[in-house]
Amino acid sequence: MTQTTALNKLVIIGVGLIGGSFAQALRSAGLAKHIVGVGRSQKNMQYAIELGVIDEIASDIASALHHADLVFLAMPVGQTKRIMEKIAPHLHADTIVTDAGSTKQDVIAAARHYLSMQSRHHFVPGHPIAGAEQSGVQAAQPDLYLNKHVILTPLPETSSDAIERVCQLWQVCGARVSLMPANDHDQVLAATSHLPHILAFTLMNHLSNTSQPENMLRFAGSGFRDFTRIASSSPEMWRDICLANRAALLKQIDMYQDELKVLQVILSTNDAEALEENFSRARSLRDEWLKNSI
Amino acid sequence: MTQTTALNKLVIIGVGLIGGSFAQALRSAGLAKHIVGVGRSQKNMQYAIELGVIDEIASDIASALHHADLVFLAMPVGQTKRIMEKIAPHLHADTIVTDAGSTKQDVIAAARHYLSMQSRHHFVPGHPIAGAEQSGVQAAQPDLYLNKHVILTPLPETSSDAIERVCQLWQVCGARVSLMPANDHDQVLAATSHLPHILAFTLMNHLSNTSQPENMLRFAGSGFRDFTRIASSSPEMWRDICLANRAALLKQIDMYQDELKVLQVILSTNDAEALEENFSRARSLRDEWLKNSI
Repeated sequence: MTQTTALNKLVIIGVGLIGGSFAQALRSAGLAKHIVGVGRSQKNMQYAIELGVIDEIASDIASALHHADLVFLAMPVGQTKRIMEKIAPHLHADTIVTDAGSTKQDVIAAARHYLSMQSRHHFVPGHPIAGAEQSGVQAAQPDLYLNKHVILTPLPETSSDAIERVCQLWQVCGARVSLMPANDHDQVLAATSHLPHILAFTLMNHLSNTSQPENMLRFAGSGFRDFTRIASSSPEMWRDICLANRAALLKQIDMYQDELKVLQVILSTNDAEALEENFSRARSLRDEWLKNSI
Repeated sequence: MTQTTALNKLVIIGVGLIGGSFAQALRSAGLAKHIVGVGRSQKNMQYAIELGVIDEIASDIASALHHADLVFLAMPVGQTKRIMEKIAPHLHADTIVTDAGSTKQDVIAAARHYLSMQSRHHFVPGHPIAGAEQSGVQAAQPDLYLNKHVILTPLPETSSDAIERVCQLWQVCGARVSLMPANDHDQVLAATSHLPHILAFTLMNHLSNTSQPENMLRFAGSGFRDFTRIASSSPEMWRDICLANRAALLKQIDMYQDELKVLQVILSTNDAEALEENFSRARSLRDEWLKNSI
């Protein structure tokens, strides 16, 4: 890997867990000389200053983007269009833009609509797979991305220099970077992230339909707690993600229901052998995955 | 609570995590003078001796049950009938029997079939809700039941003395004991334990249907890991549990699918408001539960 040169000016739009941790990782690697934060909540931005996550609160978008080397979009994905529209007129010719949105085809559609071809040469859509139960800048940490996956889904017009630059910066954060088409990304995430969230939310809602959910839940154990952990995720954030990736997600839900029907038939017919085989197949795939995952 | 008198002879049938931990908890409280283990695997039983979990390996059922104060059935629930048939002729008139099966109506049906009325006076069906990813006697620990729920589902003919005795012993282990009808128990567990297991197994099997599951799973994160943790549970054990509680479980799966269809409609119609409301309702119930749970 060639020596990564430092960013003179890094702009973080949305200084929460994701944006704040990126800033901290680059700063601790000595690769961010000046970090400007852009955010909706003055209180949160002030907090980001106090924590040393950013050096400056942007007074306006134009001055924030002035001579910026890199702009990192880390606000909720539902605000992507609005933010792209706002930054588009102020982007310098050589400013690289990357984002952290959990869905990529909708972000790319927004980029095609709002960013000039010149800006798109320097736009590298990305998705760090590093959520956490906590959120907000107070939860930010420089090693959040250590050994985490980051998927980049460049446009055909994205320059290879911009891809390489963003790739190097993520590697400096300790992340494992992969490139794939945006459509593949959205399929993979629909299956392994968005679908499980839907299933966990649905289990809680299913239980809330019973006459006394509190009595039922009194005896729920640690398996239940882990299974439903993601049902405590932000409703606003997951509304945006699910709507942004709705076609792929609906397909996944359909296929999941078909698989669930297989089990219903097995149970209905009291087929012990098929049931054990079904559970064994599930466990084997999971154990295989655990063995190979970091 | 009145002073709990010690058991002169405790018999553990099935010396694994559940049976072994019960033995250890009572021994460390000074309430089990002599502990006899009954098991299929000689190697495992030898290990239980070496670990000090039991004092003696039973040579046969008749001598194991001779003058036993308490028999704890902690083998896989699928073996309940076979074991009840085997112990029935050798139970002394005042020996208390309790079990740890994850389903209760089928255990009671077996008791009605195999145990005499005299033995059923002293039979207290129970279910400690304390699984763990590990299994086997090597994972046993005296504080496994600390602050865990134990549900007892006595028969109409179970004597109140037997119920009280078993209740006290579980409390000595640190557990929180509740009584409820077996039917209620099986409904509650179908909803909060058996259904989530089915859903987690099904997610893995759904993913195994895709062309390259390994590639898909490469990017699965910590949310996925926690959601699917219970899919690594023992296929044999869960086959038995699901078949034993099949009617209640099938009803739960049906209702779950109805709730999932609600989300499909919301997504299909792009209803952002309803989607956020749906997720918020799920999160509220979970957060409420977390606040009230131990």
